Amino acid sequence: MLVSQLLNPTLREVPAEAEVISHQLMVRAGLIRKSASGLYTYLPLGLRVLKKIEAIVREEMDARGGQEILMPIMQPAELWKESGRWDVYGAELFRLNDRHNREFCLGPTHEEIITDLVRGEIRSYKQLPLLLYQIQNKYRDERRPRFGLMRGREFVMKDLYSFDRDEAGLHESYQKMYDAYCRIFSRCGLTYRPVEADPGAIGGTGGSHEFMVLADSGENSVVYCSGCDYAANTEKSECRPQAVEDISPEGEMKLVSTPGVKTIEDISEFLAVPKTTLVKSLLYQGDEKTFLVLVRGDRTLNEIKLNNALGGFVSLQLASPEVVEEIMGCGPGSVGPVKVPEGLMVVADAEVPLMKKAVCGANKAEHHYVDVVSGRDFRIDQVLDLRMVEPGEACLKCGAPLKEARGIEVGQVFKLGTKYSKALGANFLDEKGVEKSCVMGCYGVGVSRTIAAAIEQNHDEFGIVWPMPIAPYQCVIVTASTKDTLVVETADKLYQELKSLGVEVVLDDRDERAGVKFKDADLVGYPLRVTLGSKTLANGQVELRERKSGETQLVKAEDLAQQVKTMIEKALQC
Amino acid sequence: MLVSQLLNPTLREVPAEAEVISHQLMVRAGLIRKSASGLYTYLPLGLRVLKKIEAIVREEMDARGGQEILMPIMQPAELWKESGRWDVYGAELFRLNDRHNREFCLGPTHEEIITDLVRGEIRSYKQLPLLLYQIQNKYRDERRPRFGLMRGREFVMKDLYSFDRDEAGLHESYQKMYDAYCRIFSRCGLTYRPVEADPGAIGGTGGSHEFMVLADSGENSVVYCSGCDYAANTEKSECRPQAVEDISPEGEMKLVSTPGVKTIEDISEFLAVPKTTLVKSLLYQGDEKTFLVLVRGDRTLNEIKLNNALGGFVSLQLASPEVVEEIMGCGPGSVGPVKVPEGLMVVADAEVPLMKKAVCGANKAEHHYVDVVSGRDFRIDQVLDLRMVEPGEACLKCGAPLKEARGIEVGQVFKLGTKYSKALGANFLDEKGVEKSCVMGCYGVGVSRTIAAAIEQNHDEFGIVWPMPIAPYQCVIVTASTKDTLVVETADKLYQELKSLGVEVVLDDRDERAGVKFKDADLVGYPLRVTLGSKTLANGQVELRERKSGETQLVKAEDLAQQVKTMIEKALQC
Repeated sequence: MLVSQLLNPTLREVPAEAEVISHQLMVRAGLIRKSASGLYTYLPLGLRVLKKIEAIVREEMDARGGQEILMPIMQPAELWKESGRWDVYGAELFRLNDRHNREFCLGPTHEEIITDLVRGEIRSYKQLPLLLYQIQNKYRDERRPRFGLMRGREFVMKDLYSFDRDEAGLHESYQKMYDAYCRIFSRCGLTYRPVEADPGAIGGTGGSHEFMVLADSGENSVVYCSGCDYAANTEKSECRPQAVEDISPEGEMKLVSTPGVKTIEDISEFLAVPKTTLVKSLLYQGDEKTFLVLVRGDRTLNEIKLNNALGGFVSLQLASPEVVEEIMGCGPGSVGPVKVPEGLMVVADAEVPLMKKAVCGANKAEHHYVDVVSGRDFRIDQVLDLRMVEPGEACLKCGAPLKEARGIEVGQVFKLGTKYSKALGANFLDEKGVEKSCVMGCYGVGVSRTIAAAIEQNHDEFGIVWPMPIAPYQCVIVTASTKDTLVVETADKLYQELKSLGVEVVLDDRDERAGVKFKDADLVGYPLRVTLGSKTLANGQVELRERKSGETQLVKAEDLAQQVKTMIEKALQC
Repeated sequence: MLVSQLLNPTLREVPAEAEVISHQLMVRAGLIRKSASGLYTYLPLGLRVLKKIEAIVREEMDARGGQEILMPIMQPAELWKESGRWDVYGAELFRLNDRHNREFCLGPTHEEIITDLVRGEIRSYKQLPLLLYQIQNKYRDERRPRFGLMRGREFVMKDLYSFDRDEAGLHESYQKMYDAYCRIFSRCGLTYRPVEADPGAIGGTGGSHEFMVLADSGENSVVYCSGCDYAANTEKSECRPQAVEDISPEGEMKLVSTPGVKTIEDISEFLAVPKTTLVKSLLYQGDEKTFLVLVRGDRTLNEIKLNNALGGFVSLQLASPEVVEEIMGCGPGSVGPVKVPEGLMVVADAEVPLMKKAVCGANKAEHHYVDVVSGRDFRIDQVLDLRMVEPGEACLKCGAPLKEARGIEVGQVFKLGTKYSKALGANFLDEKGVEKSCVMGCYGVGVSRTIAAAIEQNHDEFGIVWPMPIAPYQCVIVTASTKDTLVVETADKLYQELKSLGVEVVLDDRDERAGVKFKDADLVGYPLRVTLGSKTLANGQVELRERKSGETQLVKAEDLAQQVKTMIEKALQC
């Protein structure tokens, strides 16, 4: 491709609305343009990257027996009502009506459609396992679309669904996909980590892993063990409860006046006690139910754990000050577990019963109890793992300290079990003629998001530094002079030679200064740059530069093509 | 691929709701399944055909300088309001609101999005011409979705948009695409015809061609000249007005009583005159405007010509009986051009002024005028070409008789001119620094519809007869026995051999009777079938059968792969 004919509008300035580096660079390098909030057009180079990732994903799915299909984006509401998700999915689901006023949605995932398909076609255990996938647009009505392709409203996903006879079969399919995902992100040239994850809105209770591309700018926090292979989304990571060194109180609990004290910080300072001795008491509402949640003062409550532990509410939130006033008779800052209403359920993180001499709110403005003992002075109905893990804690598996990293979620695999097959009746007859529900898994790769994640992980101050396997083109030829006939003719010769060797190459033949071309080459991030200047070419040499290392070498013009080819092959092997 | 592992559910019965043969065969051959009215899932074999057509389209677009991009399916209403199409597009446009109640539509075409993109990126004539295309889902809320992929609500299209400096540039881009489309449908192995067409809702006045795959079952009628290369959609074809041999009346026009007479047929019979002497008078409403339309009694009014000739109404329809009564003082069956209200515009087909002694309605129930003369007895405000062409008529270009054929529209090319670039301000500076509007064209291929059209044109009583270039697989190997080890092992050997030669092959290894496998092979329509039976294989031979001709030959097993390869290459050259 000649750059003079390529629609690749690069920008020197950072677009005002682009908050993260991948978004900035994708716009500046002319890979995407915004059509509306969260809706983008892929320009030629952006689309090439997308197609490359798609091709890698497709190969790895096919290699594991995945069969590619294509399901409709528009989905009838009836199926979502059958699965029960129509009413619970909430505002993120784009809904629309057709001219006959029938309801539809734009698919955020395709469990309903695929399960409907399979229940119509599968009769016997002999037809299982079945692994079906598609690569297609998905839709999510984000409250605040942002970060370019990282959190768009229309995005490209690969979603595969597995149907098995039993849990053992699901386990096998799951492992296949887990392995495939590792291959995919390795082949894309990315540094990633699979971590244990929460299944979220997709549902299913059989387990889930997320695949995180590691980058300091990542939205997600993950913990991983320095001693074993344990890794998890911080939101999901189980915690080992840690007792605080402390002595039991000598006497009864006491009510103390704490004027002006509102927060955990305030009370810690006012009483001059460490936060580890405080009980944080939070009144929550899950759907119609209200309950009191206790965690140690230095810890953070993990709402996802809380919701999972209590069975999964559609809506879970802190009770409003009005509700707190009504139930506890005080403001939210004064809530405590002592002498709570009889019917109120009290759930506590596993560390709370280990506390010996605690301080807590007294359900009375500007007062606290001190020398409080769990069990003696207040009741706990359920002890659960409810807190966020913290870096440096001991791994639950091996005890070695956990480390923290930031990551961008680019894939997730789920053991769905029979949630959808039971709801929609996707059954088969087993060897004995007994009707059973298919055991399902689902597996998604955020194809468009992987582009953004790759850039977050691979860039420098000058622009994108593409890993070779997903670069829009592998090599750019820059003519430092467009007046020098030898330069122009040799450039064209090398361009043809590289193309004939199968190298993906562009020739920057624009009538621009060399500096402009260099800047664009760095910004777009072609892994290899070949520069033809009058001086060096007079000696029969051209300059070959690696974008990543910045290393430059002079190469004989006649050896250039082969050398480029070799470097690319080497880079693709990694 | 092993058929035992392929999701290819074939059916013996014709699905009740499938009205046309392509729909029936796509469901029966296991290529698609319905998810909802007008919304389909492509199963693996159906998707392979789709991808093959996409690949051909992509190659031909790239070969002519087209650059592939990908635009959002969800489009903001603002852009449609800028172009003026939001209010006029009507019920076929799927509309939806996001959570902030902003309006969007699902793109039926992408003129707005692409023009918005180009106005942001193009500054100079040096950046033109620019040819941008995408292959993507399109949406149309059909009143009655039917015929499977022929008229779906979600379908795959390739749409290319060209941006040029001037009309001459547009003409060049248009010709490029016209040529590309000829290559595409030739390469798909289809018999097709490009015909002059009406631009319809896309707009533009610079001309348009449709590409019709010829099939008796086609929805569209086309006329083509037996003497020259003229061809047109029957709706669009211009007509040469033909005078009727007749003598002028001797006296004044007369009012005659015609009791019980309502239709053209009635009056022709009642007065014993040919229909060519009758004037058909129709009161129409175009948006807010009412006018009287006259055509000869034996002709059919062409509403598309009528609408184009009068400047294009958003809504054009016959006036209701109430409106006719109010304006003409009679029922619709009695309307005539004599003594009409003064302000009422009268437009007539070019044949009407050539009539000498006509009969027409008298604007009075059960009465007609006879011996009516145009000009003398009634006025005509505009004479236009308003009728449908008929087979056998003389070609306007060369005079030879026109013939009729049925076709399925699979592509259309449009000269848009500056309709969208003016509305949205997609301008550039020319050589002299003068700001001008880009001159646009747009060019669509119905990729998914081409599958259906290919089947309408290529099938027999047993199933689909794929043209080699778009067959889901080129060859199927059938083991007539699954008990005979020699058969099974040779089949596997040939399967591997064919794959290594790059042949797209499936091995029907299912534990089914040979008859079932043959029926499925014919139904799915693999161009070549290789059968391994115990008897022939004992002699070292296998049977090779061509689906299209039904010709069968015995081939030495060791020569089979090479022969199949040769036949495929030959078939792909056509």
